[in-house]
Amino acid sequence: MQHQVMGYDRSATMFSPDGHILQVEYAEKTVQLGTASIGIKTNEGVVIVADKGKKDKLIVPSSAEKIYEIDDHIIASAAGIISDARILINQARLLAQQHKVTYDSPIEIESVIREISDIKQQYTQHPGVRPFGVALMIAGKNGKESKLYTSDITGNYFEYNAIAIGENNEKIKDMLRKEYKKDLTIEQSIKLALQIFKNILGENFEIQRFNISYVKNDKLRKLNKEEIAKYI
Amino acid sequence: MQHQVMGYDRSATMFSPDGHILQVEYAEKTVQLGTASIGIKTNEGVVIVADKGKKDKLIVPSSAEKIYEIDDHIIASAAGIISDARILINQARLLAQQHKVTYDSPIEIESVIREISDIKQQYTQHPGVRPFGVALMIAGKNGKESKLYTSDITGNYFEYNAIAIGENNEKIKDMLRKEYKKDLTIEQSIKLALQIFKNILGENFEIQRFNISYVKNDKLRKLNKEEIAKYI
Amino acid sequence: MQHQVMGYDRSATMFSPDGHILQVEYAEKTVQLGTASIGIKTNEGVVIVADKGKKDKLIVPSSAEKIYEIDDHIIASAAGIISDARILINQARLLAQQHKVTYDSPIEIESVIREISDIKQQYTQHPGVRPFGVALMIAGKNGKESKLYTSDITGNYFEYNAIAIGENNEKIKDMLRKEYKKDLTIEQSIKLALQIFKNILGENFEIQRFNISYVKNDKLRKLNKEEIAKYI
Amino acid sequence: MQHQVMGYDRSATMFSPDGHILQVEYAEKTVQLGTASIGIKTNEGVVIVADKGKKDKLIVPSSAEKIYEIDDHIIASAAGIISDARILINQARLLAQQHKVTYDSPIEIESVIREISDIKQQYTQHPGVRPFGVALMIAGKNGKESKLYTSDITGNYFEYNAIAIGENNEKIKDMLRKEYKKDLTIEQSIKLALQIFKNILGENFEIQRFNISYVKNDKLRKLNKEEIAKYI
Amino acid sequence: MQHQVMGYDRSATMFSPDGHILQVEYAEKTVQLGTASIGIKTNEGVVIVADKGKKDKLIVPSSAEKIYEIDDHIIASAAGIISDARILINQARLLAQQHKVTYDSPIEIESVIREISDIKQQYTQHPGVRPFGVALMIAGKNGKESKLYTSDITGNYFEYNAIAIGENNEKIKDMLRKEYKKDLTIEQSIKLALQIFKNILGENFEIQRFNISYVKNDKLRKLNKEEIAKYI
Amino acid sequence: MQHQVMGYDRSATMFSPDGHILQVEYAEKTVQLGTASIGIKTNEGVVIVADKGKKDKLIVPSSAEKIYEIDDHIIASAAGIISDARILINQARLLAQQHKVTYDSPIEIESVIREISDIKQQYTQHPGVRPFGVALMIAGKNGKESKLYTSDITGNYFEYNAIAIGENNEKIKDMLRKEYKKDLTIEQSIKLALQIFKNILGENFEIQRFNISYVKNDKLRKLNKEEIAKYI
Amino acid sequence: MQHQVMGYDRSATMFSPDGHILQVEYAEKTVQLGTASIGIKTNEGVVIVADKGKKDKLIVPSSAEKIYEIDDHIIASAAGIISDARILINQARLLAQQHKVTYDSPIEIESVIREISDIKQQYTQHPGVRPFGVALMIAGKNGKESKLYTSDITGNYFEYNAIAIGENNEKIKDMLRKEYKKDLTIEQSIKLALQIFKNILGENFEIQRFNISYVKNDKLRKLNKEEIAKYI
Repeated sequence: MQHQVMGYDRSATMFSPDGHILQVEYAEKTVQLGTASIGIKTNEGVVIVADKGKKDKLIVPSSAEKIYEIDDHIIASAAGIISDARILINQARLLAQQHKVTYDSPIEIESVIREISDIKQQYTQHPGVRPFGVALMIAGKNGKESKLYTSDITGNYFEYNAIAIGENNEKIKDMLRKEYKKDLTIEQSIKLALQIFKNILGENFEIQRFNISYVKNDKLRKLNKEEIAKYI
Repeated sequence: MQHQVMGYDRSATMFSPDGHILQVEYAEKTVQLGTASIGIKTNEGVVIVADKGKKDKLIVPSSAEKIYEIDDHIIASAAGIISDARILINQARLLAQQHKVTYDSPIEIESVIREISDIKQQYTQHPGVRPFGVALMIAGKNGKESKLYTSDITGNYFEYNAIAIGENNEKIKDMLRKEYKKDLTIEQSIKLALQIFKNILGENFEIQRFNISYVKNDKLRKLNKEEIAKYI
Repeated sequence: MQHQVMGYDRSATMFSPDGHILQVEYAEKTVQLGTASIGIKTNEGVVIVADKGKKDKLIVPSSAEKIYEIDDHIIASAAGIISDARILINQARLLAQQHKVTYDSPIEIESVIREISDIKQQYTQHPGVRPFGVALMIAGKNGKESKLYTSDITGNYFEYNAIAIGENNEKIKDMLRKEYKKDLTIEQSIKLALQIFKNILGENFEIQRFNISYVKNDKLRKLNKEEIAKYI
Repeated sequence: MQHQVMGYDRSATMFSPDGHILQVEYAEKTVQLGTASIGIKTNEGVVIVADKGKKDKLIVPSSAEKIYEIDDHIIASAAGIISDARILINQARLLAQQHKVTYDSPIEIESVIREISDIKQQYTQHPGVRPFGVALMIAGKNGKESKLYTSDITGNYFEYNAIAIGENNEKIKDMLRKEYKKDLTIEQSIKLALQIFKNILGENFEIQRFNISYVKNDKLRKLNKEEIAKYI
Repeated sequence: MQHQVMGYDRSATMFSPDGHILQVEYAEKTVQLGTASIGIKTNEGVVIVADKGKKDKLIVPSSAEKIYEIDDHIIASAAGIISDARILINQARLLAQQHKVTYDSPIEIESVIREISDIKQQYTQHPGVRPFGVALMIAGKNGKESKLYTSDITGNYFEYNAIAIGENNEKIKDMLRKEYKKDLTIEQSIKLALQIFKNILGENFEIQRFNISYVKNDKLRKLNKEEIAKYI
Repeated sequence: MQHQVMGYDRSATMFSPDGHILQVEYAEKTVQLGTASIGIKTNEGVVIVADKGKKDKLIVPSSAEKIYEIDDHIIASAAGIISDARILINQARLLAQQHKVTYDSPIEIESVIREISDIKQQYTQHPGVRPFGVALMIAGKNGKESKLYTSDITGNYFEYNAIAIGENNEKIKDMLRKEYKKDLTIEQSIKLALQIFKNILGENFEIQRFNISYVKNDKLRKLNKEEIAKYI
Repeated sequence: MQHQVMGYDRSATMFSPDGHILQVEYAEKTVQLGTASIGIKTNEGVVIVADKGKKDKLIVPSSAEKIYEIDDHIIASAAGIISDARILINQARLLAQQHKVTYDSPIEIESVIREISDIKQQYTQHPGVRPFGVALMIAGKNGKESKLYTSDITGNYFEYNAIAIGENNEKIKDMLRKEYKKDLTIEQSIKLALQIFKNILGENFEIQRFNISYVKNDKLRKLNKEEIAKYI
């Protein structure tokens, strides 16, 4: 509170006396306000289960999807300010296309997360702009390697075996730490993610809330309504 | 109130300690100050009924219209600061023309809303400028697909079956959730929208307040004074 | 007052918590400080009667005129900061000349008001600059169509049958709403406008205070001193 | 005073709640701190009588002159910050030379005042810079037309029969309103201006304080020390 | 505290009355929040032992590594904001590649630290940006010369025989001052570094927390999991 | 004091309510903190006597000189921030060289002071920069005309018969007003200046404190130590 | 203190009411926080004795040196922010190389100090940047002329017979004023400088703290550890 009165939290280009960048920490709170996505890496490939939130009859479901296609072999999800996410997702698609055209081979998944994260870092160090208020999850399979990344507000990113972004992500990660096993199949991963969401959402859990996509054999696949409905 | 004293609400590029961008939320209040528009998607096409507000004898009615033609197959409406809307509407028209000239085919409706929304997002993240104080509704039909979108202050957009922007939009949306059915005709949709406005406006309801346009068979059609008068 | 203490009124690029842009509203007060102009559209053409204010013997009357010629078929008037108005008037003249040179035909009256209004909108959204402190009235006849527009501080504009800008414009507009009729002649319109000014100015009314110009048959005509004197 | 505490007077790009630009009004006070100049238009031509202030034996009189030659047929004077004036005077000279070279004819006097005033307007609307703290008087004769203009801080300008800028200009203008007649000769105008200065300055009046120049038959003429001395 | 109230600590381009740049000192606190790295120079080559922090089962260990390869003969580590570090590490890699391509010889280790430090200095002297919140350690061997550098927030750098960055670096340096000897082998250096970490981390010490790499005979070598495990 | 609390004195681009630019007035105080220079114009030529201040044994006297050579026929002196003066002096030298190269004739003395003063004016009107904290004296002889100018902080300049800048300049000017005569020789002028310094400095007067240079027959001449010593 | 509360000390581009630039004065305090260097000019050449501070066993002594080679005939030292110094030293080296390449002759020592000082002046007058927090000493011999300069924060510089920068420089200069004689040899100068440091540092004096270099016969020479050790 002291630091708020002193104004150390007004700009992403100011350190507080104890070495924090408070605007960045506030932006991370924005991320917690968005619905959650869970990503799980398996030997078969990598899967994302994303919560779209409570269904609104007026919205066309396909326009509220939380899993984005970056390239044939890469999917992404986001939590936070969705219009900020769109800018970064579009940039990621552009990178993937440019790579394909230039080198005639699919882009490395890490190249995508690194370039997007570099953009995010710039927005925490240069004047006037605000940080992107969004956490990104990028998942894909390139040849034999499945990869699952998330990048935070500062543009820091790690590779994960399993991870969550958005509301309740700390609780979800605790559950993942307990339940995740290296030899899960994609099928088992989807069930695990939905089970975790059931625990988190309680009576608000509805199977129609979710997007489910995975990348296997270098191709992404999106479950349709009927396939998802089977997981109830 | 605490956050106002602390000044977190002075710039669209500052997050409050709980992760909100307050200037953007204030700009959304501007949108609530504008008269409402209702958009409804049907199997036949898509219709907008827009309230122009109380008639002023001095104003030439055609200059106060609230439904804008973007292209032969796309219409739009707006709520909020009308001069801000004009800038975005002009940009949308330019996009549609450029597409037609370049590809010799009508532009996708989503391309229009996405590009306009990207501009809006920029104005919430870059220094000095203020966000566009306007919500936009874009509707059209391209081949078999009817599409109805609205984008908010942050540049976030969704596709809708039916939606409202402007004053009392929350009340109108509640009514739409109750009354909207997938198998409405355009005719029925116009009646539904006018019925909702009658409920909202009460004794201020006058049939001359409204613009009504729809897109059917890839062509837009604007009801004239006489056609509108029949709906009393 | 609360909002003044909080500083929401210091910049044209800041929204107040209730969605207003207070600097723009203050600039609109500047407009109220300027002498008024009345514009009336008739079947014959369109006329402006502009109050130049109390005569100062030292000033050469022709240099204090309040009606500006934009093109052969377009006249304009302004209320507010006159040096701001001059910048916009010059821009309008340039637009008209460029159109004539490029297309060998007179410019549409709406093109002029739209381009000028777009400039005004820019000055309410971009950093550092202040809004143009001026309301503009643009009137003209292009072929069969008489047109009368005014644009406010935000760059919003409408077409009018009759309208006023500047001091007491609300009172004048109320009188116009009562007295304006579609079938007025130019002659009758001038008399109506002067009658309204007589009511507003009371004992300060002097026929020499006024500029009177109209556009008829696509040509503008400016009444000379003697012609104006006849209206006493 | 209220508005000072609230800070509405800190920037030339901010309106006060009652629609004033206070920095511009403060800059106008600067003009009142400079010694006065009187300009008078006659049928023969146009004359400026400028007060250079109390003589300092150390200063070379020719370097403290208050009447500037813009072109063969145009003279100018200034009140306020003299280094600001010099920038504008130089710009005026450049304009006149460019016109002569380009069109092989002397520049219109109004072109000079308009371009200088446009520069002044820019400095009241764009960020960071301060307004030019100077009022300018421009006088000349081009063919048959004598012209006398002054432009204020905002870049607003009028044509005058007779006018004053600088300290006590309101008192001087009142005297001019009483004494000015259309049929004055240049000789009579100089006597009138000096008589007014005698009234204003009282015992500080000294004939050596003044510069006197006029434009007649399209040529400017500057009175020398002896000629001026005759007017005691 | 006095200086905080006075606001001397809000910008990296402001000196406090006693000659300090407080924002830079705050950024140095950020560095203390990162896990530590120890670098030791020996006659054989140069080694870095870096603490990756407590292991998280969800993170893929290779993506959380704290030792970065700059070139065949240069390694680096960082403490502080990891996304800031990535930007500088990428820049260092680019420098090394450009040098190799241009001169067909490996880059001098000092060239790398100097160029990176020059970038850091710029970010403490120019407006708006914030300093890089990261301390860098660069180590390598070029021909016969082993080199070990660290650069601080201001872009100041020194060459060291042994050094530490990150949390508890003062304690670690005290231990190094006592234990470091010029004739250590790489093997002995690794043991010394791990012994120091054991003292610092106490019961949190786990051998899996560490990255260990060294440069010997102009080639870098990274110990694998099994090799590291032997050091328990 | 009131104006200080209100903050009207924080920027050179802000007017106070009574029309002053306080930052410029503060910069003028800087000038008063520098040692004084006296310039005197005679029929033979023009001379500057400049006080270098109390001698410091460590400083090489030639590097602390206060009279600068601009061209063969122009000398200058300065009071205030000496590094600011150097920038302007170098600019003056450049102007003189460019003129010589371009026109093959020596530059007018007024051209030099005008261009330097224009630079100074710019620094009082444009954002962010601070005014040059220096008063300049420029003296020279071009053909038959001796010229002596000084320019103040705002970039205002006058030509003088005799003048002083720097500490106690008001007292010195009063003495010059009493003692200066048009028919002084250079020799007499030097004696007069030194006599004035003796009165001002009292017991701090030492002949070694002074630089003395003059321009006569279009050539500058600098007195050496021995020549100056004769004036005791 | 009054001036601190009023905020006159927040920017290097603001004058205080008594004509001081307080940020520059604060930056000069930074210089006092750095270890001292003594420069002495002799008939043989010019010598610098620089204190590197208390030895840290971890630092490689050669990387903490305080005397920098600019060119074969020029050496430099610095006190204050060492990363700021490095930027200026590199610039000086570049200047010297460019001169050698362009003119095939060694650069004048004054050219180096002047160009570096001009850069420093710029950083005290332009917006946003902070002044370089460093005092520089430049010494060299070009043909017969030995030269010794120091430049302060504002970019002001003088030539000296003997001078000190950094902590206790006022005390050291007092000692130099007493002890310096024109006919010292380099050998005697080194002894004098070390004797002064012995007085200043007291029990902290250690001969290993010092760098000693001189320029004689146009060539610089750096004393090695053994040569320095002899001076105990």
